[in-house]
Amino acid sequence: MMKKGLLTVISGASGTGKGTVCKKLLAELPEMFYSISATTRQPRTGEVDGKEYFFISVEQFKSWLAEEKFLEYAEVYGNFYGTPAHKIEERRNSGVDVLLEIDVQGALKVMDKCPDGVYIFLLPPSFDELCNRIKNRGTETPDVLQRRIESAKNEIALGKKYQYVVVNDTVDAAVAKIKAIITAERCKVSRNLDEIDIFS
Amino acid sequence: MMKKGLLTVISGASGTGKGTVCKKLLAELPEMFYSISATTRQPRTGEVDGKEYFFISVEQFKSWLAEEKFLEYAEVYGNFYGTPAHKIEERRNSGVDVLLEIDVQGALKVMDKCPDGVYIFLLPPSFDELCNRIKNRGTETPDVLQRRIESAKNEIALGKKYQYVVVNDTVDAAVAKIKAIITAERCKVSRNLDEIDIFS
Repeated sequence: MMKKGLLTVISGASGTGKGTVCKKLLAELPEMFYSISATTRQPRTGEVDGKEYFFISVEQFKSWLAEEKFLEYAEVYGNFYGTPAHKIEERRNSGVDVLLEIDVQGALKVMDKCPDGVYIFLLPPSFDELCNRIKNRGTETPDVLQRRIESAKNEIALGKKYQYVVVNDTVDAAVAKIKAIITAERCKVSRNLDEIDIFS
Repeated sequence: MMKKGLLTVISGASGTGKGTVCKKLLAELPEMFYSISATTRQPRTGEVDGKEYFFISVEQFKSWLAEEKFLEYAEVYGNFYGTPAHKIEERRNSGVDVLLEIDVQGALKVMDKCPDGVYIFLLPPSFDELCNRIKNRGTETPDVLQRRIESAKNEIALGKKYQYVVVNDTVDAAVAKIKAIITAERCKVSRNLDEIDIFS
């Protein structure tokens, strides 16, 4: 019997390196499907529908919203962005593992709707390193910087709602741990009841 | 802060290769402490106290029993055998990971007393292979053989009470999965609350 694909959610505060970790993970597990968002904004030059985003009209977005097709969504500068549940389910139902990279607020919403997902929280290696990474992102005023650090601290406290925590000290070590988590989750009894039942 | 060592419990019906898998696992993770039983039987030639078993007197055994020092115990042919909880806890409290190989009945008792353990159930690759392995163990009458197979089937049904199931098709693949499970369990949020708290 074909097993349903695993949904792995990589999340964490800004400055913890979610993007870099996911990129490396996908390079090592190319059979995974990277879940992309649907958006109502116009494609930029070179962006392809179904690759960077599902580019859909505002009408389409509202219709998906009414049909509860989004795991979560947000409006940013007048454009809508959402994580389409049905695109993820389609893949998972054909046995494909799905990777979703998402911020903390988004992940908490996804947890409610996909309790069988695997929720991994990336941590920066230290508080100093977190501050450095946020600083290196731009030339902010000390006030803005302080607000970003406070916001990251608040997000990190929400890490306790996840199942796993991985310290992103080196990308290779973090990716190795995430791969081990995926292997372990595939061995969970709840995902293998059929393997036990063939003996009864 | 030093983390408490992990207790990994490898269990399964007879004929699933627990012993072979544990031996290989210990060869690859030699820093693990293999939990041995305490017994009141006399040491055989070459057996060393603290290596094969903790050899203790009947009085000592009864005293440990009264002090609830056993995770589980059994009497076999007039000798007592038990899994000493305090020997495991001593190791775990000094940060050492512990491996416990135990039959299904024993594992179910350990689960009650050590809810923070990692419970892995080994499955034979197929029903035919299970029958072959039981057959190859000795020259039993068809009746005895049938009883052993029925007993193994009943034990396998109890696999649903574990956290993980690993099919022992090849020892190397099974050991790789168990190592991944150990890595993943070390990343469990419940075992890393201190890592999150340093940011608050």
